[in-house]
Amino acid sequence: MNQSSHPGPTLGELARDLDLTLHGPEDYRVSGLATLASAGPEDLAFLANPAYAGQLADTRAGAVILAAGDRKRCPGHCLVSRNPYADWARIAARLHPVTAPPAGIHASAAVDATARVADSASIGPHVSVGAGSQIDARAVIGPGCVIEPGAHVGADTTLVAQVFIGRDCHLGQRVIIHPGVVIGADGFGLAFDQGRWHKVPQVGRVLIGNDCEIGANTTIDRGAIEDTVLEEDVRLDNQVQIAHNVRIGAHTAIAGCVGIAGSTRIGRYCMIAGASGIAGHLYICDKVVITAMSTVLESIDQPGQYGSGIPARPQRRWQRVLVRLGQLDDWARRLKRVEQRLSTAETEKQ
Amino acid sequence: MNQSSHPGPTLGELARDLDLTLHGPEDYRVSGLATLASAGPEDLAFLANPAYAGQLADTRAGAVILAAGDRKRCPGHCLVSRNPYADWARIAARLHPVTAPPAGIHASAAVDATARVADSASIGPHVSVGAGSQIDARAVIGPGCVIEPGAHVGADTTLVAQVFIGRDCHLGQRVIIHPGVVIGADGFGLAFDQGRWHKVPQVGRVLIGNDCEIGANTTIDRGAIEDTVLEEDVRLDNQVQIAHNVRIGAHTAIAGCVGIAGSTRIGRYCMIAGASGIAGHLYICDKVVITAMSTVLESIDQPGQYGSGIPARPQRRWQRVLVRLGQLDDWARRLKRVEQRLSTAETEKQ
Amino acid sequence: MNQSSHPGPTLGELARDLDLTLHGPEDYRVSGLATLASAGPEDLAFLANPAYAGQLADTRAGAVILAAGDRKRCPGHCLVSRNPYADWARIAARLHPVTAPPAGIHASAAVDATARVADSASIGPHVSVGAGSQIDARAVIGPGCVIEPGAHVGADTTLVAQVFIGRDCHLGQRVIIHPGVVIGADGFGLAFDQGRWHKVPQVGRVLIGNDCEIGANTTIDRGAIEDTVLEEDVRLDNQVQIAHNVRIGAHTAIAGCVGIAGSTRIGRYCMIAGASGIAGHLYICDKVVITAMSTVLESIDQPGQYGSGIPARPQRRWQRVLVRLGQLDDWARRLKRVEQRLSTAETEKQ
Repeated sequence: MNQSSHPGPTLGELARDLDLTLHGPEDYRVSGLATLASAGPEDLAFLANPAYAGQLADTRAGAVILAAGDRKRCPGHCLVSRNPYADWARIAARLHPVTAPPAGIHASAAVDATARVADSASIGPHVSVGAGSQIDARAVIGPGCVIEPGAHVGADTTLVAQVFIGRDCHLGQRVIIHPGVVIGADGFGLAFDQGRWHKVPQVGRVLIGNDCEIGANTTIDRGAIEDTVLEEDVRLDNQVQIAHNVRIGAHTAIAGCVGIAGSTRIGRYCMIAGASGIAGHLYICDKVVITAMSTVLESIDQPGQYGSGIPARPQRRWQRVLVRLGQLDDWARRLKRVEQRLSTAETEKQ
Repeated sequence: MNQSSHPGPTLGELARDLDLTLHGPEDYRVSGLATLASAGPEDLAFLANPAYAGQLADTRAGAVILAAGDRKRCPGHCLVSRNPYADWARIAARLHPVTAPPAGIHASAAVDATARVADSASIGPHVSVGAGSQIDARAVIGPGCVIEPGAHVGADTTLVAQVFIGRDCHLGQRVIIHPGVVIGADGFGLAFDQGRWHKVPQVGRVLIGNDCEIGANTTIDRGAIEDTVLEEDVRLDNQVQIAHNVRIGAHTAIAGCVGIAGSTRIGRYCMIAGASGIAGHLYICDKVVITAMSTVLESIDQPGQYGSGIPARPQRRWQRVLVRLGQLDDWARRLKRVEQRLSTAETEKQ
Repeated sequence: MNQSSHPGPTLGELARDLDLTLHGPEDYRVSGLATLASAGPEDLAFLANPAYAGQLADTRAGAVILAAGDRKRCPGHCLVSRNPYADWARIAARLHPVTAPPAGIHASAAVDATARVADSASIGPHVSVGAGSQIDARAVIGPGCVIEPGAHVGADTTLVAQVFIGRDCHLGQRVIIHPGVVIGADGFGLAFDQGRWHKVPQVGRVLIGNDCEIGANTTIDRGAIEDTVLEEDVRLDNQVQIAHNVRIGAHTAIAGCVGIAGSTRIGRYCMIAGASGIAGHLYICDKVVITAMSTVLESIDQPGQYGSGIPARPQRRWQRVLVRLGQLDDWARRLKRVEQRLSTAETEKQ
C-alpha cells in the first residue's frame, strides 16, 4: 500500500545510503511503505515499538527495518539499524518526496506592494500578505493564509493552508505550520477596574525558531510586552494553546490539546503528553516529562517524570472512590482516635 | 419564536406523516419551534428530558410532542410519539429546511483544471480545489474551503466554510463538516535521533464514512502509514482531536474537546463525554460510555460506563482532600500498625 | 524595547491625563513599554503582580507605574496609581494605538448585493458577506472572514481574520474577535432512533454583547431553539468551547481551553481558569471562581472558589497515590473493623 510513483530503491542502495546492515539480496526493490501486518512483498516495514514484535513472525513484508536484537526473529529480508524509527522516517521521506507548489504569486493573492517576496517563494490562492512583511526563498504560503504587516517567514518554511501570522511575528527556516494555526493573536491580557474589564495591549511578538513544526488549529499568542518564543526544533501537536510570554526550549515536544498559561518557561528536551495543562509564571527545567492529562501548578527543577492523570475505571467503582474522597477528613479523625484509644488501652494494661 | 417563513403544517399532517397520535384538532397549524417555557399558541414544543417535565403544566405551546406517559399532564394539544426527540428533529427539519447555495463555481474560486466537479455541486467564494480532486453531485463547498489534490468529496456532503481537506482524503455522502475543521493534516510523527527530532512522513489518508457530522475546529490527522478512519454515522462535536491511525466505529458520538491519541480503535455505538482523553494504541469495544473529563489509559473490552472525572467542590474543602491524598501512604502504614497492635492486644488477652 | 513610532508623552502628561501622582520630573519623556527587568531609561514599566516586586530595586526603567505601597522601594521616577495594571493598559493603548485598515471593500471580497455595509466599515481581502447581513460603522472585517446571510456586526467591532459568523447571529459594538473563531456553527444536537443518529436542526442564534473579546480558535455554537448569549464585556481566551444555549453573564472572564456544555447558565463577574469543564444544564451564580482544570458537574449557588484540579507530582509518588485510591474501599472496611474490635476490647475490660 501507499505505493510511491517513483521507482523504488534497492535494499542495497538503502543500506549504503543510511549505513544499515543488510540481510538479504542487494538488488531487491521496495516501492511502498506498510505496517508489519499489512505489508506485501513490494513493501518495506519497520519494527520500533516492542508492542508489535509479535507481528514479525508472520509479516509478508519485502524487507523490515529493525534493531539488531530483533534480527533473529525476522523471517525475511531485513535492514539492521541503530535507530529503526529514525531510519524509517528517512526512507519514507525518500519514497514520498514532498512536491512543492510552483514558485510565484497566485493571481488571487492580495500581496501588499511593500512586501518583499522571494522569487522562489510560492504564494497560493486567496493569500493576504501585509505591508512590510518578508517571505524568504522557497517558502510556501498555502491557500487562504493571512500574513499581517511586518511579519517574516524564513526560507524553506511551509504554511500549509489557512494559517494566520500576526504583525511583526518571525518564523525561522524549515518551519512547518499546519492548517488553522493562529500565531500572534493578542494574548489574554485584561485589567479589571471600576466594574469592568480593560484590554491590555499586547505589544510583544511571537518568535519561532528553525525546524519547528506546529500542528493543526494550535494557537500561540503574541507577547504582552516581551516576546513569546519557541526555540529551534520545538514540535507542537494539534490544538495546543501557548499563552503570551511563554518560552519553550529547543527540542521540546508537546502533544495534542496541551495548554500552557502565560509567562511560563519550559526547558529543552521536555516531553509533555496530551491534554496536560501548565499554569502560568512557572519554570520547568530541561528534560522533564509530563504524563497525560496532568495539571502542573508548581515549578519543576529536577528532570524526570511528573503527573496527576487518573485512569478511568468502571463508573460504579469510580463513584465509590469519589465517595471515599469525601470521607477522608472523617477517616483522619477516626484513625487518630483509634490510635489514641489503643495507646490508652496499652498504657492501662501496663 | 424562530418563525419559519413557510406556512406551517397542521397537526393532522404531522400526525399522519410521522405516525404520531394526535390529541387535538386536525386543522390546527403550528409555524414555529420553541421550548415549553417560551412557546406561544403558534409554536410547537417538545418534552424529552424529564428535567423539564415541570414546565408542561404552564406551557402556552400550540402543541407538544411527548411520550405517551406524559400525555395526561399536558394541558393543551399534543402529539404522542414513541421517540419525541427524534420526531422533534424531523419536524424541525421540515419547518427549517436547509437552503442550499446555487450550483456552480463562484468566480473567485481557484479550481484546478484537472479537478472533476459535478455540475450540481456548489463551490463558494475563495475556495481552492486541487489537482485531480473530485466533488460529487450536490456537494456544497462553502466559502474559504481548501480541497487539496486528490481529495474526494461525496454526494450531498456539505463543507460549511473554511474547512481543510488534505490530499487524497475521502469523504462519504451526506457528511456535514463545520467551519474551521482540519481533516488530513500530518499526524504527530517524530523520531528522535542524534539530539533532535526528525519528521516521519505521514503517508496514510483520512476516510470519513457516510452521514458523519464533524463540529467546528475539530482536527483529524491523516494516517502515518495506514488510514485514519471514521465509519458511517460518526458524530464529532467541536474541538475534538483525532490523531493518526485512529479508527472510530459506526454510530459513535464524541462530545466537545475530546482528544484521542494515535492508533487507538474505538468501537461502534460508543459515547464519549466532553473533554475526555483516550491514550494511544488502545482498543475500546462497542457500546462503551466514557463520562466527562475522564482519562482512558487502558483498553476496555466490556460495554458499560467508565470514568475518572472529579466533581469540583468549594476550594477549601478540595484543598483538604489534596492534603489527605498526600497522607495516604502514611495512613496505610498507620492502619496496618493499628491492626497489628490490636491483634497483639487480643492475643495477649486470650 | 517595543518602541512606539509616536513621540512619547511626558510623565507630567501621563499623570495629568490619568490622575496619577508623579514622583519625578514633569518633562521626562517615555517612548517604550518594558518589563521591570528589561526596561531602559526610555521605557515605562509597571508593578502589579507582587511576584515581581523584587525586580523593582534593580530596574533601569525611566519610570514605573505602581501602587502607593510600593513607592518607597522604587529607586527612580514613578507614577503612583490606584490600579497600576489598569493604568498600564491605558498608557499602552496610548503608546501603541491600533491602526485601522482603510474603510471600503477590498476588490477581492465577495459581498452580496443585499448586504448593508457602512461606508466607514472596512471589508478585507477574500471576505464573504452573505445576503441580508449588516456591517455597521467603522467595523473591520479582516482577511478571509465569512459572514453568513442575515448576520449583524455592530459598530467599531473588529474581526481580525478568518473568523466565521453564522447566519442571523448578532455581534454588539466594540467587540474584538481573533482569528479562527467560529460563531454560530450548529450545536451538537442529535436524536438516536432506530439504530442511528438524526440531526436536530439548530435554529437559534448567537448573540454577543458590547465590548466582548473572543480569543483565537474559540467556538460558540448557535442555539438549538433559543439563542446562545454572551452578555456585555464577556472575555473569552483561546480555544474555549461554548455549546448551544449557554448564557454567560456580563463581565465574566474565561481562560483558555475551557469547555461549557449545552444550556448551562454562567453568572456575572465569574472567572473560570484554564482547561476547566462545566457540564450541561447547570446554573452557576454570580462571582464564582473555578480554579484550573476543574470539572463542574453540579450547579453552584454561592459565590466563591471551587475546584477539583490535582497538582502533578513526581510520577512514582503519583502512582502510589493511584494505588491507594484503589484501596480506599478496603480501608473503609478495615477502619470500621478496627473500631469494632477496639470497642469490644474496651467493653470487655469494663
